[in-house]
Amino acid sequence: VSGADAHGLSAEEALIARYFAPIARHPGALGLADDCAFYAPPAGHELVLKADAIVGSVHFFPDDPADLVAKKALRVNLSDLAAKGAGPAGFLLSLALPAGTEERWLEAFARGLKEDAEAFACPLFGGDTVRSPGPVMVSVAVFGIVPAGRMLRRGAAQAGDVVMVTGTIGDAVLGLRVRQWDVPEAVALDEAASEELVGRYRLPRPRTALAHALREHARAGMDVSDGLVGDLAKLCRASGVSADIEVSRVPLSAPARAFVAADSAALTAMLTGGDDYEVLFTLAPERVAAMEAAAAEAGVPVTAIGRIVGGAAPPRFVGADGKALQFARTAFSHF
Amino acid sequence: VSGADAHGLSAEEALIARYFAPIARHPGALGLADDCAFYAPPAGHELVLKADAIVGSVHFFPDDPADLVAKKALRVNLSDLAAKGAGPAGFLLSLALPAGTEERWLEAFARGLKEDAEAFACPLFGGDTVRSPGPVMVSVAVFGIVPAGRMLRRGAAQAGDVVMVTGTIGDAVLGLRVRQWDVPEAVALDEAASEELVGRYRLPRPRTALAHALREHARAGMDVSDGLVGDLAKLCRASGVSADIEVSRVPLSAPARAFVAADSAALTAMLTGGDDYEVLFTLAPERVAAMEAAAAEAGVPVTAIGRIVGGAAPPRFVGADGKALQFARTAFSHF
Repeated sequence: VSGADAHGLSAEEALIARYFAPIARHPGALGLADDCAFYAPPAGHELVLKADAIVGSVHFFPDDPADLVAKKALRVNLSDLAAKGAGPAGFLLSLALPAGTEERWLEAFARGLKEDAEAFACPLFGGDTVRSPGPVMVSVAVFGIVPAGRMLRRGAAQAGDVVMVTGTIGDAVLGLRVRQWDVPEAVALDEAASEELVGRYRLPRPRTALAHALREHARAGMDVSDGLVGDLAKLCRASGVSADIEVSRVPLSAPARAFVAADSAALTAMLTGGDDYEVLFTLAPERVAAMEAAAAEAGVPVTAIGRIVGGAAPPRFVGADGKALQFARTAFSHF
Repeated sequence: VSGADAHGLSAEEALIARYFAPIARHPGALGLADDCAFYAPPAGHELVLKADAIVGSVHFFPDDPADLVAKKALRVNLSDLAAKGAGPAGFLLSLALPAGTEERWLEAFARGLKEDAEAFACPLFGGDTVRSPGPVMVSVAVFGIVPAGRMLRRGAAQAGDVVMVTGTIGDAVLGLRVRQWDVPEAVALDEAASEELVGRYRLPRPRTALAHALREHARAGMDVSDGLVGDLAKLCRASGVSADIEVSRVPLSAPARAFVAADSAALTAMLTGGDDYEVLFTLAPERVAAMEAAAAEAGVPVTAIGRIVGGAAPPRFVGADGKALQFARTAFSHF
């Protein structure tokens, strides 16, 4: 609680004007100088809506760089939009800060947020900043746009569809272990490899560039945020189908391959851990070539890892020995 | 972290299905069974966007009834929509819960949220629930609709406008003092009066019913959430004007009048404290009669408290003695 400065602004208004107004470049945001913002989707389009929060000591480390915390908070939401075939339009932010948060933390946070708001063409439309007796919490509500009726669903997969994923799977969960010094001695990662894995944990890469191609070619889609095994199970359940996945075809990064070569048990964690922020999607076999071409043009690697099959059984992840892997837990859950 | 239940649902999915899916009645919410929701405003309309969070031990007491916590979180946002002349369309929710949150707390929270989502025709479109090492935090991002270009602004007041407020001012800040046992002995409140004041702190009354009339008749508007003095200063600054307010015309409830009669110092706190969630608006003098008629029809009391005047000075709050009150601080600020 404080008084007003020379311009009659409260400290809270001054903070907003200094750090957040420069990120609010859409005319409807009114420079964050009003209580609400306004927005109309382009003709023939509808909004795609998502809210996801990240919490200090849960989703990131309290000493993670503040600019990366801001980017992660925005990107986990942008990842969802991309997987739904939607382009970003804007976001709202609720930021809870513990007492004693330093000015330079906030400065770095706002810098990171601004960089990504610009990089992803997703301006800030409003929000609030509150003191909290708890850890930093960054709640983002993002809205994107798609042509009306064209949002990709979880529940539209059909038996016979090819199952594909973007990028590589399991890096983030390994990055978290590196960050926690929880790496078996047999795993000899050089500095670059360690940094690559930690980077995947800290900073998701939303597949925004693939949104249009997904809308054109995919049948069902969702992002992989709680682990490939559990997220594919969700997609299958919503679609009333099952899937056969060849584990050997699941794309792994070079550091992840080195990790698994020395610690084969890590593979289960990689398939069931969270924070991948890749897109999992299915499409008719005759669309695969067109999708691969569109993905190459968008600069996003895509890999076929198996097939959608009929039935209500959980998806099978089949190893090199032809046997299905058994998972003690299939996904990250907060509860 | 836990496994899956008999239906293959994670505990988090089961929680969403049980408590939150029944509040997600809009078809675009897809029963919360997808990653995102979709929404299109009616033709000729645009969205009005707002996000505001409430935090345990900051905006409510940890032992406040959970249904009221849920309602407060939604209502502080609905209040903003109403003051902008917008009708509610839906909301997103990010809920952070400390470990050990009891099932019955969550049940009551969801019950309160459902009651208000229905009462205000503002269904849930999505969100997330996370464990937090901190207090309960409820982040709501709400979206409403207005005819395109018709959102009421802060910055549109003109010299000569009449300044009006809805309801009564200062009850919530007194309710907080009652709740904190911070009431001078001379103030003899009976139980009903105490409950009325505490109720105003706990449960805002968004002036949704007045949104249409505000759009029709008001020139500038905002909700009073950080204190009348500071919020009017914001409106004046945004409009490039000043205001003369007669303190004796500021509407007070019967319990508040009794409080002030015994503790005249309370008046300053009531004018500068927060949590009123009334609407502050200005309109041309010739519109006052029509506004009063429309407000009466909507069942919302409105009171003229002064005039917009030219100049850049802070608004003057003139007492019965003809002198302007001096305020050490003008509004609640978290920073």
